Amino acid sequence: MTDRSNRQILLAERPKGKLEPAHFKAVDTTIGEPAAGEVLVSTILLSIDPANRAWMQGRTYRAQLDEGDVMAGFTLCQVVAANGVAIREGAIVACEAGWQEYAILPANTVRPVTVRGPLTHHMSVLGITGLTAYFGLLNVGQPKARETVVVSAAAGATGNVVGQLAKINGCHVVGITGSNEKNHLLEEDLGFDAAVNYKSSNLRNDLSAACPNGIDIYFDNVGGPVLEACLPLMRTHGRIVCCGSVSQYDAAAPAPGPAGVPGQLIVKRLRMEGFLVSDFLGEWLTAEQQLAAWVTSGELQVLEDIVEGLDAAPAALVGILAGNNTGKRIVRVAPDPSG
Amino acid sequence: MTDRSNRQILLAERPKGKLEPAHFKAVDTTIGEPAAGEVLVSTILLSIDPANRAWMQGRTYRAQLDEGDVMAGFTLCQVVAANGVAIREGAIVACEAGWQEYAILPANTVRPVTVRGPLTHHMSVLGITGLTAYFGLLNVGQPKARETVVVSAAAGATGNVVGQLAKINGCHVVGITGSNEKNHLLEEDLGFDAAVNYKSSNLRNDLSAACPNGIDIYFDNVGGPVLEACLPLMRTHGRIVCCGSVSQYDAAAPAPGPAGVPGQLIVKRLRMEGFLVSDFLGEWLTAEQQLAAWVTSGELQVLEDIVEGLDAAPAALVGILAGNNTGKRIVRVAPDPSG
Repeated sequence: MTDRSNRQILLAERPKGKLEPAHFKAVDTTIGEPAAGEVLVSTILLSIDPANRAWMQGRTYRAQLDEGDVMAGFTLCQVVAANGVAIREGAIVACEAGWQEYAILPANTVRPVTVRGPLTHHMSVLGITGLTAYFGLLNVGQPKARETVVVSAAAGATGNVVGQLAKINGCHVVGITGSNEKNHLLEEDLGFDAAVNYKSSNLRNDLSAACPNGIDIYFDNVGGPVLEACLPLMRTHGRIVCCGSVSQYDAAAPAPGPAGVPGQLIVKRLRMEGFLVSDFLGEWLTAEQQLAAWVTSGELQVLEDIVEGLDAAPAALVGILAGNNTGKRIVRVAPDPSG
Repeated sequence: MTDRSNRQILLAERPKGKLEPAHFKAVDTTIGEPAAGEVLVSTILLSIDPANRAWMQGRTYRAQLDEGDVMAGFTLCQVVAANGVAIREGAIVACEAGWQEYAILPANTVRPVTVRGPLTHHMSVLGITGLTAYFGLLNVGQPKARETVVVSAAAGATGNVVGQLAKINGCHVVGITGSNEKNHLLEEDLGFDAAVNYKSSNLRNDLSAACPNGIDIYFDNVGGPVLEACLPLMRTHGRIVCCGSVSQYDAAAPAPGPAGVPGQLIVKRLRMEGFLVSDFLGEWLTAEQQLAAWVTSGELQVLEDIVEGLDAAPAALVGILAGNNTGKRIVRVAPDPSG
C-alpha cells in the first residue's frame, strides 16, 4: 500500500507574547503504516482549547511543545488500520492526534468511544470539556442547593456547562464573560440568574450586585484580575475551583498573582483547589452517562462553535484566546463517517 | 467595694505602615464590679501574636480595632469576681481581656482551663498557637509518613510546633526562618531535618536543595515572597495550609499575590486552604490532651519567649513582626497565682 498524503499544521515558532496565525505553518507530507501495537487514525474533529496555548509556554502536565512539532490537540478520530491490537477498523476513538489529517499512535493511547447522538457532543458536553465542568463543579466545588456559584469564561466550552450543572443543583448562578451578547444568551437561553461583563469599569460592584449573598463557589477559568475581583466577595468556607487561567496564557511574562492570596483564604477559610479531568478517569463513564441523560431530558443544552477545515485551526485558536467563541470550539477536519 | 486601679494599653493611633511602640498609649484608669452574667478577671499572661497587627488593618474574622480601643489580645486570667454565673472565683480562664490588668467580660466568653504543669504551656503548646499547629497540620494538611513538610516562621509559636508534629508523623521537615541562629536551634534541638534562611540571596535554590523530592505540604505563616518561592517546588496533589501572612500585616498597601496562582494550582492539582483554630472548637480538648501527652513523653519540646510586664507589650508586638522572637511570645502581666 502506498503512503497516504497527510496535511499537518506545525508550530513553526514559539510565541513570545500574543499568539498569531503566523506562528503556525501548514505542510503536506505522507504517512505510512502502523507498526505492531500501533493504530493509524484519520482525524474527524479537532478540539480547540485555551490550554493549547499554555502547552507552548513551558512544561505543564505535559512536555512543552517545540518549534517544528505538529501542533498538539485532542481529537476524535476513526481507526483506519490497527496492527496486532484488538481495535476494530472503523471504530471512533478519542485520542491526541494533533493538528493533522492522519496520525499513527500507540494503541494504548486511544480510547474507543460509544457514540451517542451527534459526534460533536463527544467533544463538547460529553467530551473533555463537559467532563471537566462535571468533576470540577461537583467533585471539587461540592455545590449545595441555594449556594451562589460564579463561573468565568461562562459562555466557553467548560463554563457554560458549569453554569447549567449548577442550576440543575439548585444554585444561584452568575456568569462572567466579556460580551453583553454572550451574557444575554446565558440569561435568556441557558437559565443563568445573572451575567456580568468583566470589561465593565466596575467589575467588583457589578459582581457584588449579582451576588447579594456573596460567592460560595467561584469556578475560575481565567485567573488574573477576575479572580482578584471575586476573592473579596467569597463567603466563609467558600471554594475556588481552579480550572484554567486563560488570562495568563498569552502573556509574555508571568503576571503577579491576585491580591488577597493568602489573606482572604485565611480570614474566610477558603479552599482553592486545582484539578485536571484526568484525575477522575475512573469515573468518566458514569459522568458521561449522567451528562447524556441531562442532554436527552433537555436540562442541559449543548453549545458548540464549529469551524470547517484543518487550515482554519490557527485562527480558531487565536480567536478563542480573545474570547470570540461561544460554546465548545471544534474544527471539523473531515465529515462524520456516520453521517 | 472601691474600684480597682486598672492599667491599660490603648491603640492610640492606627498605623499606616510599620507598627511602632508610639502607636500605643498607656493609661491608668479604674474598673468596677461585674454586672449580672459577667465576670471580673485579672490578667496573668498576655499572648503576643502577629495576627494582632492584622486586626488593626481592617475587618478580619473580627471587627477592626479603632483608635482609642484597649488593644485586643488573647489572655489567661484569674476570675476575681463572678456575678450570677457558675464560675468559681480563683479559676483560671482563657479569654480576650486585651492589654490591661483587669477586664469585665460576659461569662460566656471565658473558657475555664484545667491547668497541667506550667501555666505558660496553656498559652504556647497547649494554647491557641499549639492547637493552630495541630489542626492546621493534621486536619488541613493531612500529612503522610515520608512526605516533605515545609513550614515558614518555623521558630515562631505555631511554626516550631508544626515542625515537631510533622516529625512525630514521620515526615521530612524543613523550616524557614530569617536567622541562622534560629535555624541551628531547629536542626540541633528540635529535630528538623533542615532549615533555610529566607534572607538568602537564593531562597528557591536553598529550598530546592533541602527538599530533594519537592514539597508535599507547605504550612504558610508568612505569605508573600516565601509562599511564591515554595509554589514551584510543590509536588502533584500537594497542600498549602494558609495559616498566616505575617509578611503582609505591616504593609501600607496590599501587595500583589504570589505569581503561580492559579497556574501552579491547576498544573499540579494543589489544594490551598485557609483555616482558623476556632473552626475546630469541638476537638480542642482531645487535641490538648494529645499535645500534653507528647510534651510529657518529651517528643514535643516547648519553646517560649517570655517578656515581663504589661508595659513591655508594645515593643514585644513590634518585635514579633520583625521576627525577633523564638517560640511563643508571652507577656507576663502578673505572677502565676499557683506559684
